[in-house]
Amino acid sequence: MAARAMRNFGLTDLRLIAPRDGWTVDGAGMQAAKDAAAGAGDIVAGAPVYPDIPSAVRDLSRLYATTARERGQGKPVVTPAAEMPLIHHRISAGQGVGILFGAERTGLTNDEVSYADAVMSFPVDPGFASLNLAQAVLLISYDWRKAAFGDVSPIAAPPPDAPASREAVMALFASLETALTAAGYFSAPEKKDVMTQNLRNIIHRLAAGEQDVRTLHRVVRALSEKGSRQ
Amino acid sequence: MAARAMRNFGLTDLRLIAPRDGWTVDGAGMQAAKDAAAGAGDIVAGAPVYPDIPSAVRDLSRLYATTARERGQGKPVVTPAAEMPLIHHRISAGQGVGILFGAERTGLTNDEVSYADAVMSFPVDPGFASLNLAQAVLLISYDWRKAAFGDVSPIAAPPPDAPASREAVMALFASLETALTAAGYFSAPEKKDVMTQNLRNIIHRLAAGEQDVRTLHRVVRALSEKGSRQ
Repeated sequence: MAARAMRNFGLTDLRLIAPRDGWTVDGAGMQAAKDAAAGAGDIVAGAPVYPDIPSAVRDLSRLYATTARERGQGKPVVTPAAEMPLIHHRISAGQGVGILFGAERTGLTNDEVSYADAVMSFPVDPGFASLNLAQAVLLISYDWRKAAFGDVSPIAAPPPDAPASREAVMALFASLETALTAAGYFSAPEKKDVMTQNLRNIIHRLAAGEQDVRTLHRVVRALSEKGSRQ
Repeated sequence: MAARAMRNFGLTDLRLIAPRDGWTVDGAGMQAAKDAAAGAGDIVAGAPVYPDIPSAVRDLSRLYATTARERGQGKPVVTPAAEMPLIHHRISAGQGVGILFGAERTGLTNDEVSYADAVMSFPVDPGFASLNLAQAVLLISYDWRKAAFGDVSPIAAPPPDAPASREAVMALFASLETALTAAGYFSAPEKKDVMTQNLRNIIHRLAAGEQDVRTLHRVVRALSEKGSRQ
């Protein structure tokens, strides 16, 4: 699940430190992890395995320890969103930066935290801090993506419908005004100007496209024909 | 898992629309969901159930549909992080705002998306967009928390160790310089000034606390005594 979370946001460099039993190329742990990773199984299968933290982080120049508890070690505490621009800056300059996660049930020990430059912690509700490992990886990967590639969804907003010409909008309004006059909508002559302006502003606020204006024309016609049949 | 994600970031208003079989107070679906929610089971148990979208959103004034696919409906596409300050502003003003999620396997239909004012989509890697429902809820809840309560971890950075007095830092440096002189470290007299400045700057960069200075004093003493015994 952690690998799948990473892959969603373009991260692939997963390192494993002293994984539990069954973690071999053909082991049960590996197979279960590849299944959970779905399309990110290659990240799991290719993850280097280290016996301890020092060997896993030797090529890095900065290390953050994720923890939800205060450790009394006097380290700076940062949040992912606030720190990620700096992390991205360091990585862009060729420096290696790592985020250290603890085991699912126990988290990082104080000894493990002591290897880190700083503690990374989430802005959770103090009354219910219960993020699991894959959730923590997801949130950090998300903030990484935004810092490195911008907060841009691959679903670009579609190009707007060809905007209706002013002439088409005026014609729609004229048609609506005619139908409303016939229907007795403007019963108070002294208010007609204000009522007309309000309607015109509502229609402009639609920022209607050509197709929208054609649709609304048909709606006005259908309603006024229905009215005249009654 | 969605309820647990929400609770981590202080959200509780979960609404269910046409849940699948077994969703009754004593049903199997309810029990499985409460188990998965762990400490957030009350959100699941208390979630109102609606037969359809219109009844579920009738008291809201704005609705976002989460989707990873472009629907050709010409709706604005927003990202959670960029939109959340506006959503928080609306909610603070007493307006109801909802985020609509589709079923786990199928997502939202085009008909369901058409009820929304805008599409909400994540800045994922275009080559691997595979967030599940609970992950999407987690990311949106996270961005909500930051917008509503600030990006603040409940682990405040501990108050710094009482900073060492300048006098203590100077005494540490004098002790180090004496030990290094005795050890023959300053072998090139013309470089002694620069070497001394470098060391002084390293020590200042530590921003050492009183306890740190005492520790370093003992380290210098231990090393220089070891040296004198050799």
